[in-house]
Amino acid sequence: MKRYLKTDEWNIIEDNFHADNLRMSESIFSLGNGRFGQRGNFEEPYSSDSYRGSFVAGITFLDKTRVGWWKNGFPHFYTRIPNAADWSRVSLRLIDEELDLAQWDVNSFSRRLDMKAGISYRDFEITSPKGHQIRVHVEHINNMAHPDLCLIKYSVTSINYTGRISLIPSLDAIIVNKDDDPNEKIWNILRSGVTKDCAYLWTQTRREDAQVCYAMTYQFFKNGKEATSNPIRIEKEKQTGFSIGADVKPGDNVMLIKYTVISSSLYDERQELIEHSIAKARQTKIDGWDKLGNDHQQAWTNIWKEMDVVIEGDPEAQQGIRYNIFQLCQTYRGDDPRLNIGPKGFTGEKYGGNTYWNTELCCVPFFLLSTPREIVKNLLIYRYNQLPKAIENARKLGFKEGAALFPQVTYSGEECHSEWEITFEEIHRNNIIVYAIAQHAAITGSKDYVAKYGLEVMIAVSRFWSQRVSFSKPKQKYVILGVTGPDEYENNVDNNWYTNYSCVQCLRMTLNYLEIIAGEYPDEYARVRRVTNLRQQEEAERWRDIINHMYLPEDKELGIFVQNDGFLDKELNSTDAIPPEERPINQHWSWDRILRSCYIKQSDVLLGLYLYYFNFDKETVRRNFDFYETMTVHESSLSPHIHSILAARIGEVEKAYQLFLHATRLDLDDYNNETHQGLHITSMPGSWLAIVRGFAGMQILEGILSFFPVIPEKWNSYSFQINYQGRTLHMHVGKEINISLIAGEELNIQVYKNVYKLKLGTDLLLRIEE
Amino acid sequence: MKRYLKTDEWNIIEDNFHADNLRMSESIFSLGNGRFGQRGNFEEPYSSDSYRGSFVAGITFLDKTRVGWWKNGFPHFYTRIPNAADWSRVSLRLIDEELDLAQWDVNSFSRRLDMKAGISYRDFEITSPKGHQIRVHVEHINNMAHPDLCLIKYSVTSINYTGRISLIPSLDAIIVNKDDDPNEKIWNILRSGVTKDCAYLWTQTRREDAQVCYAMTYQFFKNGKEATSNPIRIEKEKQTGFSIGADVKPGDNVMLIKYTVISSSLYDERQELIEHSIAKARQTKIDGWDKLGNDHQQAWTNIWKEMDVVIEGDPEAQQGIRYNIFQLCQTYRGDDPRLNIGPKGFTGEKYGGNTYWNTELCCVPFFLLSTPREIVKNLLIYRYNQLPKAIENARKLGFKEGAALFPQVTYSGEECHSEWEITFEEIHRNNIIVYAIAQHAAITGSKDYVAKYGLEVMIAVSRFWSQRVSFSKPKQKYVILGVTGPDEYENNVDNNWYTNYSCVQCLRMTLNYLEIIAGEYPDEYARVRRVTNLRQQEEAERWRDIINHMYLPEDKELGIFVQNDGFLDKELNSTDAIPPEERPINQHWSWDRILRSCYIKQSDVLLGLYLYYFNFDKETVRRNFDFYETMTVHESSLSPHIHSILAARIGEVEKAYQLFLHATRLDLDDYNNETHQGLHITSMPGSWLAIVRGFAGMQILEGILSFFPVIPEKWNSYSFQINYQGRTLHMHVGKEINISLIAGEELNIQVYKNVYKLKLGTDLLLRIEE
Repeated sequence: MKRYLKTDEWNIIEDNFHADNLRMSESIFSLGNGRFGQRGNFEEPYSSDSYRGSFVAGITFLDKTRVGWWKNGFPHFYTRIPNAADWSRVSLRLIDEELDLAQWDVNSFSRRLDMKAGISYRDFEITSPKGHQIRVHVEHINNMAHPDLCLIKYSVTSINYTGRISLIPSLDAIIVNKDDDPNEKIWNILRSGVTKDCAYLWTQTRREDAQVCYAMTYQFFKNGKEATSNPIRIEKEKQTGFSIGADVKPGDNVMLIKYTVISSSLYDERQELIEHSIAKARQTKIDGWDKLGNDHQQAWTNIWKEMDVVIEGDPEAQQGIRYNIFQLCQTYRGDDPRLNIGPKGFTGEKYGGNTYWNTELCCVPFFLLSTPREIVKNLLIYRYNQLPKAIENARKLGFKEGAALFPQVTYSGEECHSEWEITFEEIHRNNIIVYAIAQHAAITGSKDYVAKYGLEVMIAVSRFWSQRVSFSKPKQKYVILGVTGPDEYENNVDNNWYTNYSCVQCLRMTLNYLEIIAGEYPDEYARVRRVTNLRQQEEAERWRDIINHMYLPEDKELGIFVQNDGFLDKELNSTDAIPPEERPINQHWSWDRILRSCYIKQSDVLLGLYLYYFNFDKETVRRNFDFYETMTVHESSLSPHIHSILAARIGEVEKAYQLFLHATRLDLDDYNNETHQGLHITSMPGSWLAIVRGFAGMQILEGILSFFPVIPEKWNSYSFQINYQGRTLHMHVGKEINISLIAGEELNIQVYKNVYKLKLGTDLLLRIEE
Repeated sequence: MKRYLKTDEWNIIEDNFHADNLRMSESIFSLGNGRFGQRGNFEEPYSSDSYRGSFVAGITFLDKTRVGWWKNGFPHFYTRIPNAADWSRVSLRLIDEELDLAQWDVNSFSRRLDMKAGISYRDFEITSPKGHQIRVHVEHINNMAHPDLCLIKYSVTSINYTGRISLIPSLDAIIVNKDDDPNEKIWNILRSGVTKDCAYLWTQTRREDAQVCYAMTYQFFKNGKEATSNPIRIEKEKQTGFSIGADVKPGDNVMLIKYTVISSSLYDERQELIEHSIAKARQTKIDGWDKLGNDHQQAWTNIWKEMDVVIEGDPEAQQGIRYNIFQLCQTYRGDDPRLNIGPKGFTGEKYGGNTYWNTELCCVPFFLLSTPREIVKNLLIYRYNQLPKAIENARKLGFKEGAALFPQVTYSGEECHSEWEITFEEIHRNNIIVYAIAQHAAITGSKDYVAKYGLEVMIAVSRFWSQRVSFSKPKQKYVILGVTGPDEYENNVDNNWYTNYSCVQCLRMTLNYLEIIAGEYPDEYARVRRVTNLRQQEEAERWRDIINHMYLPEDKELGIFVQNDGFLDKELNSTDAIPPEERPINQHWSWDRILRSCYIKQSDVLLGLYLYYFNFDKETVRRNFDFYETMTVHESSLSPHIHSILAARIGEVEKAYQLFLHATRLDLDDYNNETHQGLHITSMPGSWLAIVRGFAGMQILEGILSFFPVIPEKWNSYSFQINYQGRTLHMHVGKEINISLIAGEELNIQVYKNVYKLKLGTDLLLRIEE
């Protein structure tokens, strides 16, 4: 863990220069707008340890799969969103010195990420090797309202320097990808150049021909007055820009506003990219910093109105949850079904910007509940559009007749990961995709999506299970052999309880919706039967047989579900038995040692109890929680919020709070010593869920929205909004509970054991139960 | 399977040009002499599909580990013997045409590998695109008597051509390694050049500085008379040699003898390599083809005298077993404890020329029994010298106090493989190393090696097991979790019967030899205790506890040992259920499908019954054989001979014969569609073992050398020699059994149920029992 950032409810603040933590800070201060994003790199060059990253949504590269030992079935390519040209460069030169915080004396330094407004600020005072002192102020906006626009204000004041100051805004395609083979070329430069007022750079990923075009213009001010400078053009193949200078004396200020437009072939015709980008860049200069900045801040105001959570009495928790909401919304706008959410978003290369089950597990319930906008439908359609490839993927692994296995890692729908124990065996991922469809129906209250799209996915996944289970003679049950469950610290196990249980639930949901859609959407039903060649009776019978005879490992004496066959043969220890210097274990232990230990990377059985909460009573949850939580190292970011929610459910509020903090400040406090690689974007909604599903205890029980609120001792109150079946509710939990309906028709809700009718304009006031 | 080679008892014959099978032929016609070896490539350039390979023993390169997803504990480098400079090149030019069998018309073609003499012959008649007809005869010797010497005779006769013929012998360092990153450089050329009579090439592997120097000279004859030609020197950085020409008319013959010396830093001082090689090359020319060739043939005569097996009535089997002995002896001389035997020897790049447990499993018993020479001691010392690195390897995986884990794949003693399920989990390999030590003592009759070297290894391996087992509360037994057994089609399983059983046996052997050495070699015993810091009583007690409480999975009802926990939950099918077009399954099925199937790559439980035969009765073997053989796909070359031996033991002689053929003609008939990659060198002794240990039924029972001979129906007889405790026995099994002692003191042996005293000069004649 690391704690060098200041706590503040609306800001992330680094108030000294922490060069040793630069990579971590670069992750933390990342900025994006759903179309592109960047690590919090300095605009000017920095000659010491640093990790630069700039990424453009949907712009992928196909990397050849690299494995030492090929296994039949491995994909030939790994898709990733590569580090793109750096559009945020601004260099600063004095006569014969160039600003470099690694070489110059840093007299003062602070930076601040204003989450309310979505602006990053940096202020520092430095002394050059020749003794020249200057003060720099930087503002950086990746515009949420104009999602192809990056705005940078770079302001320099001389303290004791007399002479020329040059500011050099540029577009820079000398790109280093962290994991690259240095001999492999990712980007082609199609054209680059400089006009009188604009620099541009037109690039393309090799093999994929995904194109990005950058165009940049600027305004230059001296002592607040725009100066018509005579810039020097920088016109190299891989770097274009301008050098704009002014003579200053102590006290003088020069300021540059850099307007950069980032256009891609995802949204523009390839042949129009340059023209379009340059025209757009010119228009932004006309619109100007103030207007564009205001639009941006308004966009953030709208987001916070929907999604903000207020926690009174705990600034660290308050800061953490806002940070998570901020980063997630910077990464994903929810308006394009071709896009999904990479586990690190635009904040690092790891996971290649690909789609993981993280989206359905963690982001889908957040967006479903936190906004009335149809964001989740786009996430579901993303998978629906990839159904043919999921069927193809299953076919490659020997399945047939329309069975689908959605990839573990994908961009385009093709599997691109190559660890056999994951790629081929972590097949529970199929179920969360079905779960998300059902959850969408439950929370929106509409089955339209299921009828039009979802049912086809459900059938294809159920067919997969139907072929994937086998029958054990000794057990006289269906078994699922050779899987990796959510706990990736067990590989290739038999009868992972979560996998078997969620398989059964998935088959149930499919049968259930088959019946519902047949009744309520007969035309869609007929279409689905036709396009899937459904042999209704025969297939449903098989699915029911599996439901009725699935083996679900359980230890009656311990009163727990057993994570997988053989789990109880392990030496069962608490995580306390691991020496602190050996954590996280995945950075210290060899893989076999991790595998044969009892330690659990992330909730597995407990995940099942969380997702299918409606099937398990509190005591069952308690026994399993007590058994498994003590062995869980939470080295997956998807884990702590699940445990927090279950802890709250069984009344272990302080435990829930600790786990909530873990989920909420995972990156800010660097729990797993890996923030430097980027942020855990797709797990960030976990903290929101931990409040709503955990502390407020939201459940849907027999069709009724229910709450079982508790509150951590440290907090005075917490409040949030949720959206449910066309309504928006506001909930405040302090010494009292206050629930109000903000929008939508009246609604029955349950709080603790009682049901209340909630009407627009009338608050429901209740006492919190201990 | 493929069958295009002619059957012959002493020769391998390809009597037409099979361009489609060229890679396979290049494997089959490989030549070596234990110091270097080559695939059977054409000496002249060939412009179509071909796989060139030339390898020098002990000359390694460190390749960076390539994995998509790094696991803690992976080695950073993969050691391999890279494809070296090609020293066998001879090009042939007419005036403006260059011989290329891919482009010229091949009128006739044959090649023959004479295994008795160790010479490869090639004869072909071709027509050039311009209509010139010539006849070529090539002889190729990698000299067994002079192990730094390669001899090539290249003879060309004009049929209708009048004009200049040039022969161009060269050394060629333009090396293509099959799996290379084209951007990675393996070899540096330190110096290359040409003197009046010698061309040389001095090379070095990057990172490792392993050096090879080649020096070449020649003789040139026209119509049988040595011609003093005026050669053109070829003096490029990566290619040196000569071009020697003569004018011919139809009927004329020109002939080149190329003498090449291959010296390496393994045997010579680096700075003397060039000088030494050139001097040696000049001397070889003085010695001349005939003398050097005779020495070579004599070396082979000596080998065949010891090792030949004669099978009457089955030329295919006869050819196969000689081929296997021939290839193994070409690969390994047994005179240098720094060398071991790569699974593909010098015949392909796969496995990198590294050492696998194949050596101890298959080569050790062969060399122990087939020759009185101390070959196996060198193989054992190879491991002994690597003990410190095996301890270091275990330490990296969390073990301590002198526990050793010998690598799965290594050259220098450091693990270099990077598949977690193999590298970290296929730990049974530790036991065969201990088994080999005990076997050496049993067959040589001397415990000197154990006292001086072996006991240290035994203690270190036993310490590994002592730490690696864990105690299962539900089972109240020691268990070994998370392993891969010999059957690599199961990964990360619990309680692999073979691993658990051989662990127990290994601990037993250690305890047993501790006692013996303490009694018979008290000084050595004291030394071993000191250097190993043995806490005799405490450690022995722990080992005994494990021996007494090890869990050994068994199904009493089926009467079988269970390969691993959960195995019986699988759908159990015979290999007949696999469609033929899907075999070998590892080339058609995805890995998960292979893993969850019941199919067994290679004998696992049965391997235990083979190695520890003295602990199991025939009925136990029969029940397990019947259960497992039907599920075994034998996609490891280490498998069929084990099954053959067990089948013979239980009297299933025809089954044993089929499996023997599989083991014996694996490469010649290309059973697994992979001969093109190289030969299965380390499995080749399996066929010899199948005869001696299988058909002849050799066992050591309570200290008595015993035989239980059977004979396949097809055979008239088989005969071989074995060496046992200082004696050499000859055994002939036909309608009668004839056993004679050829060397050594008299000896009691058991045949079937009776014990006989065997004396020098008196044959033991018995009837074969049905």
